[in-house]
Amino acid sequence: MTTAELVRLLNLMGVGALAVSGTLAAGRKQFDLIGVATIATITALGGGTVRDVLLGRHPIVWVEDPLFLYVCLAVAGVTVLAVRRRRLPPRLLLVADALGLAVFAITGAHIAEEMGRTGLIAVVMGTLTGAAGGALRDVLTGEVPLVLRGRDLYASAAIAGIIVYLSLAGLGVERAAAALAGVAVIIALRLASIFAGARIPAFDHS
Amino acid sequence: MTTAELVRLLNLMGVGALAVSGTLAAGRKQFDLIGVATIATITALGGGTVRDVLLGRHPIVWVEDPLFLYVCLAVAGVTVLAVRRRRLPPRLLLVADALGLAVFAITGAHIAEEMGRTGLIAVVMGTLTGAAGGALRDVLTGEVPLVLRGRDLYASAAIAGIIVYLSLAGLGVERAAAALAGVAVIIALRLASIFAGARIPAFDHS
Amino acid sequence: MTTAELVRLLNLMGVGALAVSGTLAAGRKQFDLIGVATIATITALGGGTVRDVLLGRHPIVWVEDPLFLYVCLAVAGVTVLAVRRRRLPPRLLLVADALGLAVFAITGAHIAEEMGRTGLIAVVMGTLTGAAGGALRDVLTGEVPLVLRGRDLYASAAIAGIIVYLSLAGLGVERAAAALAGVAVIIALRLASIFAGARIPAFDHS
Repeated sequence: MTTAELVRLLNLMGVGALAVSGTLAAGRKQFDLIGVATIATITALGGGTVRDVLLGRHPIVWVEDPLFLYVCLAVAGVTVLAVRRRRLPPRLLLVADALGLAVFAITGAHIAEEMGRTGLIAVVMGTLTGAAGGALRDVLTGEVPLVLRGRDLYASAAIAGIIVYLSLAGLGVERAAAALAGVAVIIALRLASIFAGARIPAFDHS
Repeated sequence: MTTAELVRLLNLMGVGALAVSGTLAAGRKQFDLIGVATIATITALGGGTVRDVLLGRHPIVWVEDPLFLYVCLAVAGVTVLAVRRRRLPPRLLLVADALGLAVFAITGAHIAEEMGRTGLIAVVMGTLTGAAGGALRDVLTGEVPLVLRGRDLYASAAIAGIIVYLSLAGLGVERAAAALAGVAVIIALRLASIFAGARIPAFDHS
Repeated sequence: MTTAELVRLLNLMGVGALAVSGTLAAGRKQFDLIGVATIATITALGGGTVRDVLLGRHPIVWVEDPLFLYVCLAVAGVTVLAVRRRRLPPRLLLVADALGLAVFAITGAHIAEEMGRTGLIAVVMGTLTGAAGGALRDVLTGEVPLVLRGRDLYASAAIAGIIVYLSLAGLGVERAAAALAGVAVIIALRLASIFAGARIPAFDHS
């Protein structure tokens, strides 16, 4: 398996994990089946779409590689059938979601780099790739985006991991190793937040 | 009248129908006149805008042809004046909206095809062209998009009509005839939903 | 100081003013610090982003000139620290916001002109540059956009100023003078609305 194939596989896994969470979010709102498939797809592919539109990168990710769309629709369908039989284990979902966030964030930062954008722009684009899909899901289901008010480490985990990745790559570490370190930092921080309650402060000015 | 002129005329009729529905939605929320014109325009042109931005197609539809914008503003103005005198017939509006959805969906799918996108991408782009404007209207007026939760045939009617269009064109049927068949399927399904109560199932996972 | 440097300085002042208002809006919703920085940035840069995406102008403003992003983050940080000590004077903020609106609106219209778009498209793009960031802030904090329902002169002030600017430039007035006149009209109308209660009518059709 080449590196490009590995990246695509990891991205497909991330897409699948986020599509499951989108499907469940739509189910809680009693959307119809078209709505469920739409929310699952936007949750999983919204971040990469926002990144590509802001960077002017065409064709955007799922227009270039429609397999991502098919995966979303298939995952949404399987999830709808599966939850009729039994409840999905929430911790498994959270771990899968953490993997998705990590892969998307580092991939997004790397794509910005490849287009000649560095530093803050790479951090912003990576974080958007990881977190904007969930924010769009929340807006479309009538919620204030959890990523903006949740206080757990989500966007902040992505930012930390991207900074580790960019710093190591800047120090001459081989890019694949730097990317792996960034992914590991994001997953570690995210799991620390989920299972040990790590938090960031709120700003209350009412 | 050439085919291109006919397509433009049908599109202008669709824009007008959706602008009326946007104006009425803004009126129910007591928006000011700028807000009404904005919501009317976003309802009517939002779908084509989303399609063009996602496909990287510039200039986007109403930047290339500002007549679409002028029609939205004129329709919004006439609607505001008209409803002060008498209630608009709701069934007429629904039929006009069905025509708009049908024309937008087939036009959107055709534009994706012309850019070399086929299959699922053409279905997605056609459906977005027909349905995304109404979804943006709902989000901006503080509602969860009706198209995602309404259970009546709206996005699903568009999808069915686009599949008929693409299938017939793929089988060698002349494109104009295939497009007409697609438009007819969408209008028929939409009217069946409005007047005979055809529905798609919801997914309730609360 | 050249004209280009002056425009950039005025734009940075507008970005700073809108970032303060975004920070305070996020504080009222008890967002976490990442959420506050995000809302401040979207409030300040959302309008220019929407304009550039709709015009297909890449790299978009803050990707090309990341100083805008750094200013947003710095202003958000300083604002969070400052409001812990004392309340910011609301009238000062409103005047700063009026300046931001005016500069953004005329800059946005000018950018559309430079890309060969005139008339209604320049008006729409200028108004979006001034007002879309606040609308995105409102949607992301769970509010119906104030600009659509507020009845005070905001988008309407921008539209009037842009029309003055385009008309004077069309009559052969030197562009810098025409721009200054447009900026002055917007600030005057906005302040008239804030301090003298000038209003536009609502359309109530419930």
